Amino acid sequence: MQRYFINNNQINNNIVTIIGDDVHHIKTVMRMRIGEKVYVCDELNTYICEIINITNTVELTILEEVNENSEMDLKVTVAHGLVRREKMEEVVRRLVELGCFSYIPVNMTRSVVKHKEINIDRLNKIIKEASEQSHRQKLMKISEVISFNELLKEINNYDIVLFAHTLYKDDVNLFNELKNKHSNILVIVGPEGGFDDKEVERLIKFNNLKPISLGKRILRTETAPLYIMSVLGFIGEQYEN
Amino acid sequence: MQRYFINNNQINNNIVTIIGDDVHHIKTVMRMRIGEKVYVCDELNTYICEIINITNTVELTILEEVNENSEMDLKVTVAHGLVRREKMEEVVRRLVELGCFSYIPVNMTRSVVKHKEINIDRLNKIIKEASEQSHRQKLMKISEVISFNELLKEINNYDIVLFAHTLYKDDVNLFNELKNKHSNILVIVGPEGGFDDKEVERLIKFNNLKPISLGKRILRTETAPLYIMSVLGFIGEQYEN
Repeated sequence: MQRYFINNNQINNNIVTIIGDDVHHIKTVMRMRIGEKVYVCDELNTYICEIINITNTVELTILEEVNENSEMDLKVTVAHGLVRREKMEEVVRRLVELGCFSYIPVNMTRSVVKHKEINIDRLNKIIKEASEQSHRQKLMKISEVISFNELLKEINNYDIVLFAHTLYKDDVNLFNELKNKHSNILVIVGPEGGFDDKEVERLIKFNNLKPISLGKRILRTETAPLYIMSVLGFIGEQYEN
Repeated sequence: MQRYFINNNQINNNIVTIIGDDVHHIKTVMRMRIGEKVYVCDELNTYICEIINITNTVELTILEEVNENSEMDLKVTVAHGLVRREKMEEVVRRLVELGCFSYIPVNMTRSVVKHKEINIDRLNKIIKEASEQSHRQKLMKISEVISFNELLKEINNYDIVLFAHTLYKDDVNLFNELKNKHSNILVIVGPEGGFDDKEVERLIKFNNLKPISLGKRILRTETAPLYIMSVLGFIGEQYEN
């Protein structure tokens, strides 16, 4: 069954009103008719709804609330040095599947990609599509591209900040510390060329920053976030539950 | 420093002879000269070598053996329902980075891809390239495409077979069983449309088969192997070491 994401204010008296691109998707792509059913997620709950009216908007009536639980308890935000468009799209798509809460593209010294090459609208479409496929209840957030300085200002808002750097090959056991102890995690991954020395210097001054190893091999910048997200998902959802 | 993979029989009296495509790479792509140094891996060891002669082959003298350890103790083989060429290439590349031992493409009932679309030579080139980038010592093996029946014949050769299926949402703790208890692991992942019911029926008869959950969300066929490989790498290399 098809899945659509709405804001809470699109529900009134048990009636959901779908607007924007999703109307086109329902009418033209899926060619749905009155009486057909879809899932609707409003950031808090998932409902099975039936289409009752199709005009410039689509109206649905809520039939029942579904007891779904596809979101991680750990809130993981990935701050990622700007990488090329295709790579970023692939990372974003997979991070959605793996349960990531939020993605922040960061302009770092060694980022070869320009700000304007990043199309946040397109990334938001990918997030929506991947969220439908992977049966998520919440859309992963994505921010506009920020500077490294702006990232530094954010760091104290997180319980713990994992800093993926090849220097830290022997720093084991860190992931074990995480289980149930931190709910709001920031993961920082460098761009293709890695972090610049000055960036490393500025990062390691933060008390909540923990350098982590990503295993024995060198991971590409587009594989590192997926490794970390997989392991965090495993720790959060499967380990010792 | 550039990294090349050779067979053990290419070393004689401390002299390495590089043949085939790598000669072109050294001469024409990298434009290396006599006296330049590279890493050479012979499946067992890694050496720093110096180029001493360049003709139709490249001869190098071994300067020193390097104490490298980038391979996992767990031997993980991924048997993957045939997926589209670009997806398979991406999966293969990332599995190399994540430390996978061997990859077996399997023609399953719901595989939409044809046998002949799979170019094993090209995949082997990708494996070599990714092994250099990720600093592996061994090349991941890849087999020719096999049938589902052939896969079934292989199953008893493994200590444990992990079977990724969306049916098994609540089967937790399985990964915890793995640590140090099994060395030779087969992971089976279905193609884009998932396993066929008859395939599931035939698989679950094996005693060493363990159904596993991949967390709360639905992972695409090209994301599932990366999730499992990341978690196995984490368990093998970082957890409680």
